[in-house]
This record gives sequence, structure tokens and C-alpha cells, in this order.
Amino acid sequence: MALKKKPVTGMRDIMPEEKEIRDYVEGIIRKTYREFGFLSIETPCMEDIANLCSNQGGDNEKLIFKVLKRGEKLKLEEAKEEMDLVDQGMRYDLTLPLSRYYSNHANDLPSPFKALQMGNVWRADRPQRGRYRQFKQCDIDILGDASNLAEIELITATTTCLSKLGFKNFEIHINERRILKAMAAYSGFEEARFDEVFIILDKMDKIGEEGVKEELLEHGFDAAGVEKYLGLYQMLHSQEDGLTMLANTLGDSLEEGVADNLREIIDCVEAAKQGDFKMVFDPTLVRGMSYYTGTIFEIVMPEFGAACGGGGRYDKMIGNFTGKDVPACGFSIGFERIILLLMESGFKVPEEGGKVAYLIEKGCDKDKMTSVMVEAAKLRQEGTTVLISRMNKNKKFQKEQLEQSGYTDIREVFNR
Amino acid sequence: MALKKKPVTGMRDIMPEEKEIRDYVEGIIRKTYREFGFLSIETPCMEDIANLCSNQGGDNEKLIFKVLKRGEKLKLEEAKEEMDLVDQGMRYDLTLPLSRYYSNHANDLPSPFKALQMGNVWRADRPQRGRYRQFKQCDIDILGDASNLAEIELITATTTCLSKLGFKNFEIHINERRILKAMAAYSGFEEARFDEVFIILDKMDKIGEEGVKEELLEHGFDAAGVEKYLGLYQMLHSQEDGLTMLANTLGDSLEEGVADNLREIIDCVEAAKQGDFKMVFDPTLVRGMSYYTGTIFEIVMPEFGAACGGGGRYDKMIGNFTGKDVPACGFSIGFERIILLLMESGFKVPEEGGKVAYLIEKGCDKDKMTSVMVEAAKLRQEGTTVLISRMNKNKKFQKEQLEQSGYTDIREVFNR
Repeated sequence: MALKKKPVTGMRDIMPEEKEIRDYVEGIIRKTYREFGFLSIETPCMEDIANLCSNQGGDNEKLIFKVLKRGEKLKLEEAKEEMDLVDQGMRYDLTLPLSRYYSNHANDLPSPFKALQMGNVWRADRPQRGRYRQFKQCDIDILGDASNLAEIELITATTTCLSKLGFKNFEIHINERRILKAMAAYSGFEEARFDEVFIILDKMDKIGEEGVKEELLEHGFDAAGVEKYLGLYQMLHSQEDGLTMLANTLGDSLEEGVADNLREIIDCVEAAKQGDFKMVFDPTLVRGMSYYTGTIFEIVMPEFGAACGGGGRYDKMIGNFTGKDVPACGFSIGFERIILLLMESGFKVPEEGGKVAYLIEKGCDKDKMTSVMVEAAKLRQEGTTVLISRMNKNKKFQKEQLEQSGYTDIREVFNR
Repeated sequence: MALKKKPVTGMRDIMPEEKEIRDYVEGIIRKTYREFGFLSIETPCMEDIANLCSNQGGDNEKLIFKVLKRGEKLKLEEAKEEMDLVDQGMRYDLTLPLSRYYSNHANDLPSPFKALQMGNVWRADRPQRGRYRQFKQCDIDILGDASNLAEIELITATTTCLSKLGFKNFEIHINERRILKAMAAYSGFEEARFDEVFIILDKMDKIGEEGVKEELLEHGFDAAGVEKYLGLYQMLHSQEDGLTMLANTLGDSLEEGVADNLREIIDCVEAAKQGDFKMVFDPTLVRGMSYYTGTIFEIVMPEFGAACGGGGRYDKMIGNFTGKDVPACGFSIGFERIILLLMESGFKVPEEGGKVAYLIEKGCDKDKMTSVMVEAAKLRQEGTTVLISRMNKNKKFQKEQLEQSGYTDIREVFNR
């Protein structure tokens, strides 16, 4: 029986050219966050199915790859529904596993805890171009710091990392869930319908203010409220410092200190920034996940329509494990999008040392082979990449391939 | 509802101290094999269930984590057995995925193809100390080279890698499936029962020659044959160059050139070796997997009872995908065992640059925070690790923790 050569639906094999870039980017990420004092951790790729299906993950929970029970625990005849058959599932993000990890190990971890995670996640999405069912996420989180120092460090570390990878002219959009809510409350919308408002607001960059207005009206929101709501956004266009003015306008609708806190994050990151990017207060920024409780932020790249990563504060999630809330704030780099952008721009991993290839003709004796091995060891110690390969019958093609891979120095070793 | 804090049964969370060592070891492995011209690749963690259950994987196939079909494809009412419910499974090794990958992409890959893979594999083994259901494997393989240059390069690269990690006094045991078979044939055993003989022989290091003899007799093997078989092993004790003598004794039972081929591998690796290790011809080495067709080898560490990795030649596996055999040879480092040995020996990752921590008292103003950020950026550019953290109420404990983590320079920033 012939086996299947293709990867499973929606997943893909990574070719050497791309993998080299991925390894390089992972290395830069690891090194940069390490310099910021982040500690690397790892959790299993599988989590208990009850944890995964606990309404933390929103729509992602519909996309879980579930793992069949094993041995005696699988009772096929008695099973009435899917959940009777499974006990574990593949993680769909790294935030839930981190919260579990922290709940389990907080006593053995520093406080605040600055964590770095890189790993695959799985979502059984409908396969589509550029979107895969297994993809890498790269998250940094600071747990146990309620102050905005967490946001400042997360954004500074991430922008430093992106700058090291050569990205320029990007923006970090930032907003606050509490400002979003205050704007909705100020406009007279009912709190129970806030999420509905935000889902429509989230489309602002696609459908514009007119589109948002129409859709709110279609959803039956009061015309005067909608007018007032859109008025806030129009007012912000003409203002240099929108945040301060917005806070003044919202008055008591906005909790005290929220705007100052956000202002401080923006100013502090701007003042100390190293790369070529801009902090932008964006009152239309929503971010889907319901677990965010405060600041939310996103990386916006000029070359890319969608966000290249983002995050925010989620102070209530760890309480779901321990019964006691822990302040938490995280930033996820869109690893796959970063790789895509680098690939499309023709990025090449910087070469270190040279590249030498030895082609050994068939039948070379032991002594000849040994002397090549000794020579190669010496070159490798000096940092040169040395490929030793059997000489193919079609030597010309073999040499062309090697030259394309950067082997400029090809040494032929003949059997005589 | 409180969520579960523990990882799923048989899997584990990796703490920062261990993860730091793992990242370091991965880096050394990646760099070393790169210097030998290996190309890094990646395949999905899931494979088609039919590929996984195709009798390539021996006992590992009993331990597959199976993934439930999704959506309409899952027909719970009609399902009669496990296999009706699943379409994919977690990979249990990296060799089968590599063979599939090569079959799928051979036209786009160099020939010979030198591949490096590092990734997790899953086996639903009975949980036991030091053995986990998710663990990392690290494989290098050379596909498309029928000559022993493949073995020489694989062993040289791997021993170089182990030496860079500080391992000394280890041995690479090497044998040949065809020698194993010739020894059994010479002793008059039937070919159909060779595997049975090898399973018993494999216990030699535990039960000794007497034990092997007894067990063979118990299994009903002919006493004269058993005598002749054990005689071969006794003869080898007294000989300097066991391999040559064995080849002479076996005569026509052994295919021509097999012993010379093996001799060349041993001599060539020995002659060019850089590290502190020894090549050992070990005629008792069996290695379980039925897919091996030629040389087999294993890393034997003095500190460790079991093998710390191994591999061999498997020239027939790719033919299962394409119908056309491709010579293949691979070496798998026992990543988890290497990490265990390093942890037990108190290994510390070499520090680069210094480690500075800033503790910021609550209420520090924007200007003070900004100046710390600017200072930190400068230090980080010079390669110093800089942690910026909110000052805790229990500052003494916080400083102690930081000192333990190597922050020798702790700078306090006060709100005044």
C-alpha cells in the first residue's frame, strides 16, 4: 500500500529556505526578549478539554482539534456525544496555557513574572490561502504587575525586536477597553449591548464612519445616541492630542486616571524608543477577545492590511484557575505574518563565515577521505560551513545547485 | 467553575531554569549541524492516521494519540470502531514524517539531502518517572547517499555536537544488520526466526552470555546452533580487530564488502575525530526498529545506563511512499536524556554580558521612568540583560530572588 505524500489538510511542510528564516527570526526574538529579562517557558501542546472549552477562547473554541481517549477509557458503545470520546485537545493559543502554568507554579516563579513562549497552536479553520491549521505563536506576558510599566516594557521590547528584524515605519495602535466603554456609555447605549456596538465599531477601517453609522442604526440603536457616538470620533480628527480632549469630554463617564495611565504609556515608549515607529492612540481599536480588561494594542505594518500582532491586559483570567485575580498583560507577535513579510521582501539570513563544499568521487580510499575530514574539521572550527558530499554522476547540476545555495568554494576530490 | 491547574497526564510544564538549558542546547545543535551543511526543515505535528498505522513504527503505533474527525465528517452513530472516528494522529517519531516530506518534495531538494529536524513527538506510554508523553526529538538524516560517507558525516557531526556540549568519554557503538543476520545464518538458525534471536541477543548487556544462551535454548533453538552462535561472541573477546576476524570466520555467510564498509566508517571517524570519544564495533547491538537495512549505531554515555541516541540506515522506507527506494541514513540525538544529564551535572548556560535590574518605586513620574528606559536601551545595546520591574512591597525578598537569578547590579529608583 502506497502511503500519502501530502501533509494533512490545512497544514504544511516548511522548506529549507523558509525554515532558515524562521530559525533566524526565532533566534532574534529569543535574544531580544532575554535582554529584557523575559524568561522562556514551555507547556504541553495538549490541554485538558474542559480547560479549552471554558469560554475563555471565544470563537477559537469551535476550532479545537480534540484528542481521542485511549485504552479502557474510550467507551465507544456508551458514547452519546463528541465530548464523551475525548479528554484532551490541542491548544488554540498560548494565553490559556500560560494562565494555567502560572496558577500551577506561581510560588516557584519570580514576581512580577516576565514570560516568553514560542510554540505551535492548532485551529481547525476552513483551509484558505495563507492561513494554516498549525501555526506558530510568539507571546510575551508580564504577570503580577498592575502598573503600566508592564505595557511600557512589553511594547518597548516588541518594537525593539521588530526593529532588529529590519521593520520600519510601523505603528503601535493603542486603546483602552474602559475608554471604549466610556464612549459607549456617554452616548447613551445600554451596557448589555456594548459588545454589539464594538463589533460594528471594529469595522471602521473597512466601512468608514458612514458605514458604522448605518449599521448601528440598522441594529436599532437610537439615532441621537449614534449621532453623539460618531460625533466623538469626528471631533478626534481635528485634534492634536485627542486623548486629553476625549477624557475632558467624557468627564465622569470615564474612570479617573485611565486616560493619564494611557498617556504615560504612549509618552514613555515614544521618549525612549530606539526604532523607526510611532505610538498612535486609536479609539476605534477593539480587539476581539472578551478577556481583555484594560489597555489593548496592535502592530500595524504599512506593508500589510491586517494587524501583525497585538495584545492587552487581562487581569481576570488567572482568577479562573485560582479564584484569586492576578494582574496580567501580554503581547503576541504575529510570527507567521512576520515570516510572510520577510519572505515577500526577499529577506536573506546574514551569512556568517564562508561556505565550502567537498565533492568526493566514488571509490576514494580511506586516507583521502580522512584527510578531507580533518581539513573540514579545521574549517568548521573557524566558523566555515563545510558540506562533504558524494560526487553525483551529474556533477554539473550538483555544482550549480550548490552554488545557488551559497557554496562559492567547491573542492573536488578524485579517486586517483 | 475552577479550571484544572495541572498539565494533562504524562506531560509536563518546563520551568525557566530547564528551558534556558534546552534553548541553549537547541542553539548549539542547530549551529553545529548547520556548519556540516545540514538544512533545517519542519513538518506538521499531525500526520494522516493511515500513514502512522502502516507498520513502519513497530510498537510505537500502539501509542498514537489519535485526533477526532471534525464537523460533518464525524459520524458518531455510524462509527463501529476507533478508526472510524479519527483521520489524523500525533507523530510518534520524526523519521516517518521525513520520509513523507522527502517523497513529496524531492524535486525541490538538493541531492543528497542533509536534513535537520527538531520537534516534539507524542506517545501515549504508561506514565513513569523521567518518561513523558510529549518529548523532543532531534534527528539528522542524509537521503540519497548510498555510500558510507553518509554514516561518517552523521557520526562526525553528532560527536562534534556532543563534544561542544561538554560530553567526554562516550562511545559510539556500531554494528550492521547484515552482520547480525550473517552471524545467525552461520549458526544455522532459520531466517524466519532471526528477529526472535535478535530480541534475545539485545539483552546481552543485562543478562550476559549465559543468560542469552539459556533463553535461546528455552525458545527451542537447536543446542548446537546456540553453541556455535555464542562461540562467535566468545571468540571476539580475545581479539584486537574483531571485525576482520569475524568477517573471515563468517566467510560466504556475509555479503562481500560489508565488513570493509563498516571498517572504513570506524577508521575514518576515529582518524578525523575532534572530541574525546571512541568508536566501538559492537556485534551485540541490535536496535529495535525493523526498518533498518544496514549500519546501526548508538551513543553510549558512561553516566547513563541506556543509549543517549542512535540511528542507522533505512534504505527501504521512502519506497513505501513513492514505489522507488532511496538510500537513507539517520541519527537521532536523545534530546531529553542530554538535557537530563546536563541538569543533573549542574550545567549552567554561559552568561553573555552582565545582568542589571531596575526596581521602580510606585508613583515615579514619567520623566524618571523615561530616563530609566533610555539608560536601559543603551545597556541592552551593549549586550547587557536589563530587567525593569515595579518595586514590590517586600523589596528584600524581591532583591534576593533577583540576586539568585544572576542580577548582581540592582538599581533602585525612588519616587522623590
